[in-house]
Amino acid sequence: MPLPRQVFIAVIGAGGVGKAFLHQLSKLASNLSCSPSAPTYLSLILLSTSKKSVHHADYKSLSNWETELANSTTPPLPLPRLAEYLVKAPGKVVLVDNTSNQDVADAYPMFLKHGVSIVTPNKKAFSGSYQLWTDIFAAASNGQGSGGCIFHESSVGAGLPVISTLKELVETGDEVRRIEGVFSGTMSFLFNSFMPVGGGGGRFSDEVKTAKDKGFTEPDPRDDLNGLDVARKLTILARLAGLKVESPTSFPVQSLIPKELESCASGDEFMQKLPEFDGKMDDLKKEADKEGKVVRFVGSVDVAKGEVKVGLEKFDTSHPIAALKGSDNIIAFYTKRYGDNPLIIQGAGAGGEVTAMGVTGDLIKALRLLQ
Amino acid sequence: MPLPRQVFIAVIGAGGVGKAFLHQLSKLASNLSCSPSAPTYLSLILLSTSKKSVHHADYKSLSNWETELANSTTPPLPLPRLAEYLVKAPGKVVLVDNTSNQDVADAYPMFLKHGVSIVTPNKKAFSGSYQLWTDIFAAASNGQGSGGCIFHESSVGAGLPVISTLKELVETGDEVRRIEGVFSGTMSFLFNSFMPVGGGGGRFSDEVKTAKDKGFTEPDPRDDLNGLDVARKLTILARLAGLKVESPTSFPVQSLIPKELESCASGDEFMQKLPEFDGKMDDLKKEADKEGKVVRFVGSVDVAKGEVKVGLEKFDTSHPIAALKGSDNIIAFYTKRYGDNPLIIQGAGAGGEVTAMGVTGDLIKALRLLQ
Repeated sequence: MPLPRQVFIAVIGAGGVGKAFLHQLSKLASNLSCSPSAPTYLSLILLSTSKKSVHHADYKSLSNWETELANSTTPPLPLPRLAEYLVKAPGKVVLVDNTSNQDVADAYPMFLKHGVSIVTPNKKAFSGSYQLWTDIFAAASNGQGSGGCIFHESSVGAGLPVISTLKELVETGDEVRRIEGVFSGTMSFLFNSFMPVGGGGGRFSDEVKTAKDKGFTEPDPRDDLNGLDVARKLTILARLAGLKVESPTSFPVQSLIPKELESCASGDEFMQKLPEFDGKMDDLKKEADKEGKVVRFVGSVDVAKGEVKVGLEKFDTSHPIAALKGSDNIIAFYTKRYGDNPLIIQGAGAGGEVTAMGVTGDLIKALRLLQ
Repeated sequence: MPLPRQVFIAVIGAGGVGKAFLHQLSKLASNLSCSPSAPTYLSLILLSTSKKSVHHADYKSLSNWETELANSTTPPLPLPRLAEYLVKAPGKVVLVDNTSNQDVADAYPMFLKHGVSIVTPNKKAFSGSYQLWTDIFAAASNGQGSGGCIFHESSVGAGLPVISTLKELVETGDEVRRIEGVFSGTMSFLFNSFMPVGGGGGRFSDEVKTAKDKGFTEPDPRDDLNGLDVARKLTILARLAGLKVESPTSFPVQSLIPKELESCASGDEFMQKLPEFDGKMDDLKKEADKEGKVVRFVGSVDVAKGEVKVGLEKFDTSHPIAALKGSDNIIAFYTKRYGDNPLIIQGAGAGGEVTAMGVTGDLIKALRLLQ
């Protein structure tokens, strides 16, 4: 029987997803049988937020991260120093980036080249410039490189098996023709409430307010309504399907922010003025209703045509996208093998627990490779 | 740069799934970058059907399997001799079992113990006796053992990511409460045609005939209608969810074969007499219709209650199970993290290409572990 092996875990970000991940990490069997060679012991050696950080120079495990972090007065390590600390660790290291920080994302190629593996829900690493995308996979050992490995299931659809399924379709030689779906929990909730199948629903601005009050939107709802979050997810899927998408702003993205409100100084001012624009959304609703359809905010990739787009579309009430409930996501893969009836994945695509689950699942996959 | 490494592939079964798999295997990049250590070269060293077999004593690759198999006059190797051949191969071996043969399944623990990895859609290995299940995972390195690894995605829902998703839910610490769905392409097609949402549909015996004529049933349709295929899939899912299910006959399974026809000498006789029993199915249809529901053949696992069952149930016309199309499968995972809205996977759950895709995907996973 081979000796047990230790893998060092460093976590950046301790917000909703970060906390849920740390909780899941603490429950992962200390004796993971995920490797053919030996049991694995996980040591949390660094935890960092945007404000402060805790780690020990001798790589001792953080025995009680909540207390240690609360008591810490150390500011977060600058990225080059963080890299230095991780690279010198006496064993394999997995960096868990639970932030949505662009600077951290930009440093992935450097971490990977130095043998540090990465698991993350951070969309910015995979939906920013195409150069960053190629740099990351040129360095990663599960790309073309020989460095650490990288997994990012939760960058689309949280813990739903979206990225892994698309990768498997591609790797096993299927021809992915079209990807279509509802990729935002906020947009899902908004339109399932605004125009439910069977009629009803309030004014659009009221539904935005309800979503905001329930915590389903970003603090400033414009950060959801501008469509950029969905555009980032579509960028990732399109790239995995083989399209060279330059950036999330290089294809048509419909913003639901009225032009006149783009310059509002605050989210509050925006919310105050939004009702003035309900007429346009009402017209759209009536128009769809006349055709026996409903309106949904969707994204799609047409691989053959090389087209990616994000915005409002009308769907028959019997369409799976129309029947979505709550804040669920739905993703349909149309491929050569699956023919007219797509492979569909559906469920909660946002929330700390399910997002962290995708990260924890990725960590297990990374550990299996780190033998 | 490490040296390229060779992995030996042995394939049993060259029917619909087997042929599709061999086609996918030939298209897999000979230079798979699925390992952090080195490119991988795959050598097909053995191909066997129930009638004949081809392999070279010196482990030379089969350069043209179709011709070599067609020209072969060698009968298949007995299992102990097959094991001997594979164990002595000068490198790692993956056995791809594309049969549904119980004898081959019974030999898995022996293969695994000797370091041979296995990928397979063969349900019988995982839904037979509980002893075989424990023996397999006691031997496998991705179980509790130190032998070869084993993957069986296509044993439920063909290439749909059902097994991998359930395993990830469990491994990351979610609490799986209930699994429910339509697990048979044949049963899906039959009931979507017999009682479509919105009315219509023919007599039950006519729909069985249509399904048979289209090749959607086994040669003898009783092999679908007895529910055993679905019961086997539920056995696998229930065991993965932690229930100790003794066998696929140790829980209630509703057979759609009328008692009086169980003793028919042939499938043809059965098909001839089936129309006499249409009345009972018509009554069921009328009863469901009165309640505004449709009838579907489903399986479910209630993890908390430890209950597994398979049979006919009524569903609201708005339920995702009612809205299924063609011969699609649908699988819903109700878990603590996903709450009231389950994680749903839907799509073709039968057919050579999509079943083979699950096997090819498993092969890639196995290769990543075989470093």
